Amino acid sequence: MKVKVGINGYGTIGKRVAWAVNRQDDMEIVGVTKTRPSYEASTALREGCPLYAARSEDLDNFERGGIKVQGILDDLLKKVDVIVDCTPGGTGAKNKDIYDKAGAKSIYQGGEGHEMTGISFNALANYHEAWGASSARVVSCNTTGLVRTLFPLQQAFGINKVFASLIRRGADPADKKGAALNAIEPSLKLPTHHGPDVKTVMQGLDIQTMAVVTPTTLMHLHCVTADLKRTASEPEVLDLWSSTPRVRLVSGKDGIKNTGQIMELAKDLGRPRGDMMEIAVWKDGVKVVGNTLYYYQAIHQESDVVPENVDCIRAMMKLEKDNLASIAKTNRAVGL
Amino acid sequence: MKVKVGINGYGTIGKRVAWAVNRQDDMEIVGVTKTRPSYEASTALREGCPLYAARSEDLDNFERGGIKVQGILDDLLKKVDVIVDCTPGGTGAKNKDIYDKAGAKSIYQGGEGHEMTGISFNALANYHEAWGASSARVVSCNTTGLVRTLFPLQQAFGINKVFASLIRRGADPADKKGAALNAIEPSLKLPTHHGPDVKTVMQGLDIQTMAVVTPTTLMHLHCVTADLKRTASEPEVLDLWSSTPRVRLVSGKDGIKNTGQIMELAKDLGRPRGDMMEIAVWKDGVKVVGNTLYYYQAIHQESDVVPENVDCIRAMMKLEKDNLASIAKTNRAVGL
Amino acid sequence: MKVKVGINGYGTIGKRVAWAVNRQDDMEIVGVTKTRPSYEASTALREGCPLYAARSEDLDNFERGGIKVQGILDDLLKKVDVIVDCTPGGTGAKNKDIYDKAGAKSIYQGGEGHEMTGISFNALANYHEAWGASSARVVSCNTTGLVRTLFPLQQAFGINKVFASLIRRGADPADKKGAALNAIEPSLKLPTHHGPDVKTVMQGLDIQTMAVVTPTTLMHLHCVTADLKRTASEPEVLDLWSSTPRVRLVSGKDGIKNTGQIMELAKDLGRPRGDMMEIAVWKDGVKVVGNTLYYYQAIHQESDVVPENVDCIRAMMKLEKDNLASIAKTNRAVGL
Amino acid sequence: MKVKVGINGYGTIGKRVAWAVNRQDDMEIVGVTKTRPSYEASTALREGCPLYAARSEDLDNFERGGIKVQGILDDLLKKVDVIVDCTPGGTGAKNKDIYDKAGAKSIYQGGEGHEMTGISFNALANYHEAWGASSARVVSCNTTGLVRTLFPLQQAFGINKVFASLIRRGADPADKKGAALNAIEPSLKLPTHHGPDVKTVMQGLDIQTMAVVTPTTLMHLHCVTADLKRTASEPEVLDLWSSTPRVRLVSGKDGIKNTGQIMELAKDLGRPRGDMMEIAVWKDGVKVVGNTLYYYQAIHQESDVVPENVDCIRAMMKLEKDNLASIAKTNRAVGL
Repeated sequence: MKVKVGINGYGTIGKRVAWAVNRQDDMEIVGVTKTRPSYEASTALREGCPLYAARSEDLDNFERGGIKVQGILDDLLKKVDVIVDCTPGGTGAKNKDIYDKAGAKSIYQGGEGHEMTGISFNALANYHEAWGASSARVVSCNTTGLVRTLFPLQQAFGINKVFASLIRRGADPADKKGAALNAIEPSLKLPTHHGPDVKTVMQGLDIQTMAVVTPTTLMHLHCVTADLKRTASEPEVLDLWSSTPRVRLVSGKDGIKNTGQIMELAKDLGRPRGDMMEIAVWKDGVKVVGNTLYYYQAIHQESDVVPENVDCIRAMMKLEKDNLASIAKTNRAVGL
Repeated sequence: MKVKVGINGYGTIGKRVAWAVNRQDDMEIVGVTKTRPSYEASTALREGCPLYAARSEDLDNFERGGIKVQGILDDLLKKVDVIVDCTPGGTGAKNKDIYDKAGAKSIYQGGEGHEMTGISFNALANYHEAWGASSARVVSCNTTGLVRTLFPLQQAFGINKVFASLIRRGADPADKKGAALNAIEPSLKLPTHHGPDVKTVMQGLDIQTMAVVTPTTLMHLHCVTADLKRTASEPEVLDLWSSTPRVRLVSGKDGIKNTGQIMELAKDLGRPRGDMMEIAVWKDGVKVVGNTLYYYQAIHQESDVVPENVDCIRAMMKLEKDNLASIAKTNRAVGL
Repeated sequence: MKVKVGINGYGTIGKRVAWAVNRQDDMEIVGVTKTRPSYEASTALREGCPLYAARSEDLDNFERGGIKVQGILDDLLKKVDVIVDCTPGGTGAKNKDIYDKAGAKSIYQGGEGHEMTGISFNALANYHEAWGASSARVVSCNTTGLVRTLFPLQQAFGINKVFASLIRRGADPADKKGAALNAIEPSLKLPTHHGPDVKTVMQGLDIQTMAVVTPTTLMHLHCVTADLKRTASEPEVLDLWSSTPRVRLVSGKDGIKNTGQIMELAKDLGRPRGDMMEIAVWKDGVKVVGNTLYYYQAIHQESDVVPENVDCIRAMMKLEKDNLASIAKTNRAVGL
Repeated sequence: MKVKVGINGYGTIGKRVAWAVNRQDDMEIVGVTKTRPSYEASTALREGCPLYAARSEDLDNFERGGIKVQGILDDLLKKVDVIVDCTPGGTGAKNKDIYDKAGAKSIYQGGEGHEMTGISFNALANYHEAWGASSARVVSCNTTGLVRTLFPLQQAFGINKVFASLIRRGADPADKKGAALNAIEPSLKLPTHHGPDVKTVMQGLDIQTMAVVTPTTLMHLHCVTADLKRTASEPEVLDLWSSTPRVRLVSGKDGIKNTGQIMELAKDLGRPRGDMMEIAVWKDGVKVVGNTLYYYQAIHQESDVVPENVDCIRAMMKLEKDNLASIAKTNRAVGL
């Protein structure tokens, strides 16, 4: 029997996780919530996801909008083995009480703190930590991106120290988040939270980060420098990443020069919603000087965490013991 | 036997037309050309489109890039019934000689002039003009957009006069075209070429246009005013368009407030490459004052002409006599 | 003795009006308010404007910020003949009570409704309406822009009907207002409020408007069509505007092709803050077809209303009877 | 008698250097060149700069444009002691021959290579190198920015190693340079040229750089990490920079959170053209962890090199021996 999964918050992340779960053979979506009868509510129905109002006070709204719902979050929780919380960041703590009371396992996104669940998940780096757990947090898109490329480096060469500058997109393509239209804005509080967040997955890593926001919508881009313990050549590093799951090497020489062209590649690959779930690393933007490795990577903030959520469900529900097996299974099902 | 179609120029438009042709049961792609071994050349191969170099001098380039081609354009032309020219605007005239000599029927895009073929095509408005023709031009994305909503208005209510302001996107998502990053730029030469271009399809229409370019990549947006001959109510107009092929009504009330959200809807609909091939008209942005109809519509410049190219092939190859039948067949095949 | 002017809200508009008032010989700033000890509070002090806290609860904030204030709004109101309200739109009604009780004349900006004062002011079109008035509203940047070019057209040729599409900037250069970073967004409620707002100044004008927001910060741009009562040639229209105050003809042929280049011209002209207080009309973007005049104009939303506020003070305080004399005096003092 | 200065190329940098030179009491502009009779040619005349055509073939163009010129570059070169080359990058080598033959000293901008003159100039770091020189290069905006903050750090604390990520603006406000409208683009060739360029001024510095381009127009922003030889506290570093010429500390707490707000501050300061000639460093974005200093700085690409050009003239013409005296004199004259 398939594991029953609910999504609380069918938005940018939620609708993608729902899609990915429904592509697996060992789990299925039994319901998703929405606060308003928007076009995304219609998307849920079109995709065959039973729709629930997030709160009882939203029911009228749906009725007026002519969209029939199956009940409210509380009703959905009775049917799920796991609820994936995809609500806006910072509301998870309040929600956790509700999920716990309903006896549902729960998964949170990177907008919540590590402490709430004590488990910050990445399928490649620490799958086992979520084994059988009742709750866990899938780390943010940026943290996921850093872990995907740094973890194999650490395994293969050892890392003394990492410094990364994060050039962030200002808002998602369909969002209006209040980013400046024509300015670059630094995250003044240093070190930014990104470094410590990576350490919730890769304990003991020496990492510092700085970050700026720019008026683009497509992807984050990281400038990463890693001081390695053992000297590595550029081909060695590229070899390593070419066999790392959910890392994709791209090349300026092939015409992939910026984040817009990575998204174009994702469309050409026929990906659902034009998503690039892998971390894209520029082959011709990798350089080793002495013991220091320099590289650029791009992160599709809307989708890189999606397969991680699937793997996290699998670990928490003890569906598959081996992380690489789970990763391979997920990837196959979503077309990576 | 299927009609054999070649694409000269497998770029933004070319790769989409190739995809759409291959979804039809009465035509197929027998080859596409590319000038460089870029990631889009790999896309062609992945999609099963035999690849040709545009010119013999490009052959070395492909060999160095490790991408095998089947020959050059001349070789491809020997195999096709119709070649669809998707090269950059303004090179069509030179190409037409080559196609004519090879005895291939040819279709051009909106970047070429009307005079070259004497036939400016829109499937809804003048399908019959291309019947059996040896060459034709599918009009530009903006002209296609205007014709799709104006033609049914003209049929149903009559039109005295149209004025449209075109707010254009500056470049396609993966392009760098030299648009200003933070400025609005008017097309100073008035009337802009858009009005006369609509008249190549809808002869005799009284239409004037102005246009500006803005620093966005997703869609063009038109502010249209049409003085109607017969008074029409807003519901009558919406009824008309809701039964017009390749026009899609959207609504700000459902959360579709801007062009970013229309593209999000296209992704949610599972469209290939996230394309919105229909013209999107805002239901809650339609207003009639006296005899004048005001409306906003958005045009996905990368894809709205794609199904038109398919229908144009069908008309030129005399595959289907009835334009609505061709439109319906094309739409079904590409998932509209 | 100079007229004593206070500014409530020393922000984008307020700081410019303060600067302009202090350049006149018949009025002076006696104080400005601010809610926080930001860099703009320091600007006020640097420019010699006595600083007041907007509310008593802000006083602590200023003290902690190390910026000394002269008191609060109530204290300022005791010293002024006229208060210019430059607070965020929609708060004027509440403020008017305060100003009225303090016995101060008051001027509002375009974010407030016409009804509150019954007088919507433009120096060229209806200076006399504010003569001796106790309160008035200077119309918004867009309305000011439309009136500046339409009013002389109406006087010279008569106008049957106007239609304008407003392509709006998304936010001011130093603002984060929540505009989409990469989308065009229409104002769905039609007709937009801009047409009726023009009629608060030019009663009886037949005008309709549509509007979109774009991700730029510099200027609004209008596509205007005016059906004239009497045929006018392009040179006649350009002659008319070249002698109209606060209208500046620019030319694509001179390299002024977009709003970015208009702002560059303003910097080259040595304008304070790089402001373009005139409405810029493209000479080579003017066209007459039959009785219809088509033109593009650009509006610097941060500054075009600034000289209007000065003239409005002059009318309300009966400092100068003739509107053209006031306009000329203001222009000379601010360097137009 | 004042030193006679010519400007070859009265564009973004040229017009600013001309303005700054004319504010000094020991030098003056005797002519500037332009290739076309654009609005910037009119600016030159308005600012009292005698105008010359860049080449004889441009003379007709000016005549048709109704703008009178004094001759061509060759004529100008006869009148100057120093010519400042502000032509587009990469044309300097060809120009140098012309200047040399005319016996004029010459100054180049950062778009030219170091080798051409052998002297890469920054007024604070190596003023003496240009003493009496016949030619020199003022380094680029980004290099100037890095040197201004790194040189004092090196003097005060010693530097082991620097790493900087440069987040570059895509084009100047009035330019259309072909940057992507909605993408982030890395400089794939690593290390980027910026590090080596800093070493043309600060020989022996261990510095590496990465760079990306973003769709903004206002300023570059640097994320800098510097490993210091001697531990420095944050207040020590801020103290150092607060007494460093042409470095300006700004603060997010005062409302200066992004590059748009820095430019707003420059406007509020009454700077010509709204320029911020100083490097802006965020006080609340400075952090020391161990021996590593992290900081953000913003660079106004249009103007930071302007006072450097003035100082370079002074050094080459032996007008002032002491670099700090020259810097102070220049700053006073341009209002810093």
